[in-house]
Parts: sequence; C-alpha cells; structure tokens
Amino acid sequence: MTTQELVAQIKKKKSFLCIGLDVDLNKIPPHLLKEEDPIFAFNKAIIDATHHLCVAYKPNTAFYEAYGLKGWKALEKTIQYLNTNYPEIFTISDAKRGDIGNTSTMYAKAFFEDLAFDSVTVAPYMGKDSIEPFLAFENKHTIMLALTSNEGAFDFQTKKVEEKELYKAVLETSKNWKNSENLMYVVGATKAEYFAEIRKIVPDSFLLVPGVGAQGGNLQDVCKYGLSANIGLLINSSRGIIYASKDEDFTEKSKLKAKELQKEMSKILSSRI
Amino acid sequence: MTTQELVAQIKKKKSFLCIGLDVDLNKIPPHLLKEEDPIFAFNKAIIDATHHLCVAYKPNTAFYEAYGLKGWKALEKTIQYLNTNYPEIFTISDAKRGDIGNTSTMYAKAFFEDLAFDSVTVAPYMGKDSIEPFLAFENKHTIMLALTSNEGAFDFQTKKVEEKELYKAVLETSKNWKNSENLMYVVGATKAEYFAEIRKIVPDSFLLVPGVGAQGGNLQDVCKYGLSANIGLLINSSRGIIYASKDEDFTEKSKLKAKELQKEMSKILSSRI
Repeated sequence: MTTQELVAQIKKKKSFLCIGLDVDLNKIPPHLLKEEDPIFAFNKAIIDATHHLCVAYKPNTAFYEAYGLKGWKALEKTIQYLNTNYPEIFTISDAKRGDIGNTSTMYAKAFFEDLAFDSVTVAPYMGKDSIEPFLAFENKHTIMLALTSNEGAFDFQTKKVEEKELYKAVLETSKNWKNSENLMYVVGATKAEYFAEIRKIVPDSFLLVPGVGAQGGNLQDVCKYGLSANIGLLINSSRGIIYASKDEDFTEKSKLKAKELQKEMSKILSSRI
Repeated sequence: MTTQELVAQIKKKKSFLCIGLDVDLNKIPPHLLKEEDPIFAFNKAIIDATHHLCVAYKPNTAFYEAYGLKGWKALEKTIQYLNTNYPEIFTISDAKRGDIGNTSTMYAKAFFEDLAFDSVTVAPYMGKDSIEPFLAFENKHTIMLALTSNEGAFDFQTKKVEEKELYKAVLETSKNWKNSENLMYVVGATKAEYFAEIRKIVPDSFLLVPGVGAQGGNLQDVCKYGLSANIGLLINSSRGIIYASKDEDFTEKSKLKAKELQKEMSKILSSRI
C-alpha cells in the first residue's frame, strides 16, 4: 500500500485508528476456547466488527510466538484474512526486529513477502545497515522505534547524545537514509509534549502512536502537536478495544469502543480537512 | 543452565565456540533439499558433526521466520533435538527481541518456556522495563546488544551520551538491573580494541562475540582484551563453519573448520587454566 492510499482511507473513514491484535488466551471470551483456532476466531470476530472504524490492524508478534507453531499459524491466517477480505486495511506486524544486513533481509522477506504485511516495526539500535534492507521493499513501510511509551524510554531514548536526545538523533540520522520515504516512527502517546519537537525534525512522516487509553495518553494532546498536513498519525489501541468484554457480546462492545475513538478522530479531522 | 555449568563445559571441552545455525536453503548442500525437512536435516547433521567442539549453538530466528510455518517448525525440532541429545550444550535464540513489559514477558515465554532455549538476545533501546521480564526467568540468560559487529554500530552505539558512548551507558545502566547476574552482552569481534574498555565496566559478564571469521574479527585480539577470570567469552561463527562445503562431505568440512577454532581456543585456555 502506498502512503497516498493510506491517507485516502483515513479521509474516507474519518479515522486514523489502528487496532492492536494482541491476543492473550487468558483474556478472550472463554466460549471461543472451544474453537479449533481460538486466536484466529477471536481476531476474525474483532476484525469483522471494527474494520469500518479503523484503517489499520497491528498484531504484536510476541503474542503469537508465545503459542509456538499454533500461534504462528494463527498469525498467518489473520493476515491472509485481512488481505483477502479487507485489502484497503493497512497492516502492521509489530515485531520490533533489527539485525545485521543479510539477516534483516530475511526478516523483511518474512514479514513483507511470506506474510505479506504492509509494514513492520523495527528497532534502531544497530543503525543504518540494519534498517535499509527493510526500506528497500517497494510500497512497504518500515516503522522505527523513536520514543516509546514505556517507562524504560527514559533509560536511553531521552538521554543527550552529542548535544541532543538519542531519539532526536535517531530521527535526524534516519531521515536521510535511502528510501526514507518508506520510513515511519513509533512515538508513544504518553509523551504528547514531545510531538512538537518531533514534528520540527520529521514534519511529514507517519507516526504510529501506542499508549492512548490503557497507558494513559490523550488523543487531543497527541493530535494538537502531532497531526501533519497529510494527517500523519496512526493511533493504536489494543486492550482498550479488543478486551472490552469477555462475554458473548464482545464484538459489540469492541465496536462501541472503536466507535468512540473514531468519532473523536472524525471531529478532529473535520476541523482540518 | 547455570553460568557455572557453562564454564565447566568450556573448561572440559577446551572451547568457547558457539556455532550459528543460520540456515539458508540456497546455501546448504543441494542433496539435502530432497529431505522432508531440509532445514532440520542440515542442522542435525551439523550438530552431530560438531557438538564435541563447541559449547553453544545459536540459531538466528530471522532465517527460520523467513520460511514461515515450515521454518518455525524446523526451529522447534532443532532446539528439541539439542535439548534431548546434547543437554550439556548452551542454546541461544538469536532473536534480538524487546518490547514493553507484558509483551516482553510473552517473548520470554516463547523462547524460555515454549522453545526451551537457555538464552535469548535482546535489544536495549526500550530500556529497563523491556528487559527485566526476560531476566526474571531462573537459570535463563538474557544477552543484550551492546556493541554490534556491523557498520551501523557507529550510527548510535558509539555516540557520546552525556559524556560517554551509548554502548557504555547501556552496560553501566543495565548492570544494576534486577537479576543482572543473568545478563550477558553482544560485543562484535570486529571492534577488538573496545574489549578493554568494556571489561572495565563489566569485568565478569559473559560476552557473546559474533564477527570472527567472515566479518573479519581476530580471535587472538578478542581474547587478549576480552577473557575474564571465568573465561566470559562465547565466540560465534556461523557461515565460516556451516557453509564450509556444499557437497556430500559438508559435515566433515564443518567439523574441520570448528576444530581449527577449537584448537586455537584450547591453546589460549591452556595458557590460563
């Protein structure tokens, strides 16, 4: 998917919501555990109930790997289901990968070719040659960790590196890498005050924003400082939407939670488009 | 496996060699492609031929994920084969994972419980709460990227963070984390001159050292500055050993390559033990 297609979807759906598919078998409605593949059954139900309210889905690979082969198979079925039934959806494999050159190419193949995701999240620590193999794939997007939403973000990311904070060095360095038009960044919603700083460095890049809801981030604040001319935001909510209920009505409750966020986004967008 | 058991194995085998199982179907002997599971068949043959010369094996997960379900299954079979037949071997899942707290716990379960590896490599960018969930597992080891062997290491890792290089900040900060006795570090062999600096900060920690051989690192230099009182080194070689030949004799050739490194290590150790 091209960035233009993503922006068109956002404008059409009046939503820049991304729903995190972080499936934990202890948290899904118990009646689904009787299904042959409970993880996929849960994802399918959530997707069918919410696809018109969001523009992206983001399975975090940790939750699938934790179930071994069974989990990996559920991940495959989920992405195939999305690509077949809702090809207009932007898909994000939240994998936070990164390795030396030829190894990063293997990861890129796994997520872009074998699984056919539109994008993958990556960690910047190993630098340019660990990320460029991902950027080399046409119409695929690489989403690099910049300023994450957890407490540990302050261990290194906000430390000054040669006069500027590490996350700013990550942004400034990487925006000049080859194919950087395919580069997006993860920026946690819990640090809304940083968005103005970030937009000075990358005014147009898409930012994937976790941390709205369960982690305490505020949508209005993020939008105030984070929206770009081209919207440039994907706001992720996982637990707040997908675990809205453990009962038979879970799809209805998830839809309501997604609808709340979409309505707020629609209001914000209508004052800008 | 405890660190003491690992050290005992090193002394017994006179080797601190780790063999990287980075299986690329384009590089293995073509006659293996007829096997039902060529990836596992290759690993099994290499392991049977070299297990007495090394103390650790390190599959890089990228190479398995690139083959989807089939790859994940081969990874499962490989670790099961190692744990069943060679339980004295230290196993490393080179996965370079890292995520927020509850998600890191899922990764830790995937690699420590489901797959039953002794250790996993992790990326430090997200800080303390992204790593501690791994450290919480008893007799399991977490190997954090510190100074990697690729060119991109100079993009961020060697940049000064509040007066010191980022990789030193990573070492100094993390050595005080909870359960840090289970923490090891990745330090590339291509930067032998840094080992003296690193040993000033973490005199005893085990260092997993890629980059000897194909990437140009020198074993003697690494040992000169990197050996600790407890040896404290695992030297990894992947391509140099496992792709020593594409013919029917590939196990013999791999064994010879492993033997060369083991002999050099034995010489170094005998002058110290």
